[in-house]
Amino acid sequence: MSPSEKHAPSPVELLVTKRDGKRHRPGDITRLVESFMSKELADYQMSAWLMAAFHHPLTSAETQELTLAMLHSGTVLEHKGLKLPAVDKHSTGGVGDKISIALAPLVAATGVPVPMISGRGLGHTGGTLDKLEAIPGFSVVQSEPQFCAQVRKLGVAMIGQTERLAPADRRIYALRDVTGTVESIPLIVASILSKKLAEGIDALVLDVKVGRGAFMKTLSDARRLARALETTARGAGKRVTSLITRMDAPLGLTIGNALETREAIEILHGKGPSDVRQLTLRLAREMLLLAGASSTVAAADKQVLRALSDGRALELFAKMVRAQGGDVRVVTDPKRLPRVKSPLVVNATCSGTVADIDAMVLGRASVALGAGRWRAEDKVDPRAGIELAVQIGDRVEKGDPLAWLHASKRVLCDPLVETVRGGFVIGSGKVKRQSLVVGS
Amino acid sequence: MSPSEKHAPSPVELLVTKRDGKRHRPGDITRLVESFMSKELADYQMSAWLMAAFHHPLTSAETQELTLAMLHSGTVLEHKGLKLPAVDKHSTGGVGDKISIALAPLVAATGVPVPMISGRGLGHTGGTLDKLEAIPGFSVVQSEPQFCAQVRKLGVAMIGQTERLAPADRRIYALRDVTGTVESIPLIVASILSKKLAEGIDALVLDVKVGRGAFMKTLSDARRLARALETTARGAGKRVTSLITRMDAPLGLTIGNALETREAIEILHGKGPSDVRQLTLRLAREMLLLAGASSTVAAADKQVLRALSDGRALELFAKMVRAQGGDVRVVTDPKRLPRVKSPLVVNATCSGTVADIDAMVLGRASVALGAGRWRAEDKVDPRAGIELAVQIGDRVEKGDPLAWLHASKRVLCDPLVETVRGGFVIGSGKVKRQSLVVGS
Repeated sequence: MSPSEKHAPSPVELLVTKRDGKRHRPGDITRLVESFMSKELADYQMSAWLMAAFHHPLTSAETQELTLAMLHSGTVLEHKGLKLPAVDKHSTGGVGDKISIALAPLVAATGVPVPMISGRGLGHTGGTLDKLEAIPGFSVVQSEPQFCAQVRKLGVAMIGQTERLAPADRRIYALRDVTGTVESIPLIVASILSKKLAEGIDALVLDVKVGRGAFMKTLSDARRLARALETTARGAGKRVTSLITRMDAPLGLTIGNALETREAIEILHGKGPSDVRQLTLRLAREMLLLAGASSTVAAADKQVLRALSDGRALELFAKMVRAQGGDVRVVTDPKRLPRVKSPLVVNATCSGTVADIDAMVLGRASVALGAGRWRAEDKVDPRAGIELAVQIGDRVEKGDPLAWLHASKRVLCDPLVETVRGGFVIGSGKVKRQSLVVGS
Repeated sequence: MSPSEKHAPSPVELLVTKRDGKRHRPGDITRLVESFMSKELADYQMSAWLMAAFHHPLTSAETQELTLAMLHSGTVLEHKGLKLPAVDKHSTGGVGDKISIALAPLVAATGVPVPMISGRGLGHTGGTLDKLEAIPGFSVVQSEPQFCAQVRKLGVAMIGQTERLAPADRRIYALRDVTGTVESIPLIVASILSKKLAEGIDALVLDVKVGRGAFMKTLSDARRLARALETTARGAGKRVTSLITRMDAPLGLTIGNALETREAIEILHGKGPSDVRQLTLRLAREMLLLAGASSTVAAADKQVLRALSDGRALELFAKMVRAQGGDVRVVTDPKRLPRVKSPLVVNATCSGTVADIDAMVLGRASVALGAGRWRAEDKVDPRAGIELAVQIGDRVEKGDPLAWLHASKRVLCDPLVETVRGGFVIGSGKVKRQSLVVGS
């Protein structure tokens, strides 16, 4: 027996191992998480370990072990009696990313179950839960048995993380948030996947955003994150596909909770901006292929388009809204979503072609209008946000509207007019819109 | 106004600055410590900052600011009415290092005030407070006014850190101890000096130990620590001298609290092992020179030797023991110190010359006998420890005693006989003892 096999390392020994850039032995990270959850390991010790892990990024094997330890800190759902594998989609977050709202019922309408557990907006990025809650009465809170029952019955449910799912992630994320240890790819991977795997899914499609409005600013960073997510998800026995998609400009024509939900409903009506529609269809295709519901791209696209055009996706969305306590009339009459009476217009000060729209500028302005939160405890205003009049490549004349600012009070809008106008670049000549999907 | 001047950085911004290896702006570390003390900055944030500072060592200016911020977290003593500058000595810790006990009264007997605040033993290294407490009744607890009054009256007092002196160091050290962030030179410097400067001293002599029984294992590390301590102490306006001294073998012939106090009293009687005597005299010389009590080495040595040989040092020690509630009879009759009835002898298994004695092996064995603590909350047995029969260079015959083990129970000694014997290297031929002072 070598000295290192003699005993389980003490908390300080675990910290020193990672501090010195050494690999943990198998089992050590599991013990670290278990002792953190039993309060044997203190918050100040976990935060020191997180800072050490920031400086010496976890290996694949360590990331895998951390993910599973966080997953098994709580309940792991099991969906019984489903005919096809359960699939979910996860986006790493962006501005105007309302894709999940139409995507989940669309995929479920083809017969592929979608048990979706989402998050809230933080900083300049929005969150699916806040968007769904813009529907009057809609509840994102369900017990695990309620959630499983709805997935079994409708094929789709969209809720928030419960207390019992991956509680270690919740406690560890709260520490990372206040200790400057968020921006570590292995820690991000473990956080995302421990929550997603707790849903009881068989497969996962990842939408890794890249660009100035995304967490990952460069393609190489986005690829690193995508690869790390794939490796860890596969290591946990899940099928996985990832797309890397552009997040330089906002997605679609809306930013803000009720505004984005309205746009998602338009997609389910077969309308809406083409970029939102295209990304929704593309992600749906990947989900069907991953679930084995279709064996070719063409077959998957056909199934998805049929579920959209024959109204099954919209109908399923309506059923989900009703099942989760929401006012189902918004589905046919989106004007019933909470809204601001007189949005403030932002006009173009020159004529030309929209060459660029800065997602970060508009995302931050949207938070300032009340649509998002800088801190987890902030309240959001469902009506607040920004509606765009144009997208990249559109022609504008001087005086034309570029956008409208929606807020509870005019006083919130006034200081943002110039900011938002500054987010638009108007150029001369033609501008071609670039493809959203930049890699996989 | 540049963006970085707009506001005081938030706690997370401070953490991210150090995490990314950037320098803090002047004032930032002061705010960090202040907000930690006011509980605005949580323990888990401070521990993450400490781990970041471990990876990106503080600059001289940052170390200076941290030291002063920790110093000013509490009371800074001022000694009034002293004729000469107040001087203290600090050792970075070793095995058998009982120097302070004879040194403080010896220097004070020459007229140089010594307000000494010491620590307890931890791990294989001993602590002056534990050694002094081996004297029945001796109290190391005093209020700041009591301490100052005794320094004014006797010229010397030896106590433990009070609640009010450098409380930030106490809280930060407690975190470092359990988060694997002890071994950082700038953090060590700030911890040592914030406590020492709180004593109200004008000058400080540093005994930086190097070798296998010391915290610093190599001469270059010891030099780095010595230079950092000097730079920071000078920056705080203090006179400072440092010696780098060997800590491969135990100092003197005793390890353990009552045993070491007995040896220190022998030094004050003009006896005791030559290495202990020589290091005591050398450090006393440096303290007198630093205080300006003597202007030459020869004058300083003369003053010190006179105070030792005419009994003034011993007399002052007796006064201090009495003033601090201790049984003064131990000064003339050291057998009154608590002791074990039948120590267990460790014999030499071959004849030859003692070529080496491993301070770390004997230091750890001494803790196992009950003389020290592995954790701060452990109790020490004043009687426990190891008495050496020989030092490096001594001739031994097979069967001669090498050492005696002192413990409350025989059962504690038995498993350590072979360990302690293994700490001695018996060779053939002559071995010359090396000089203790290896640098300055």
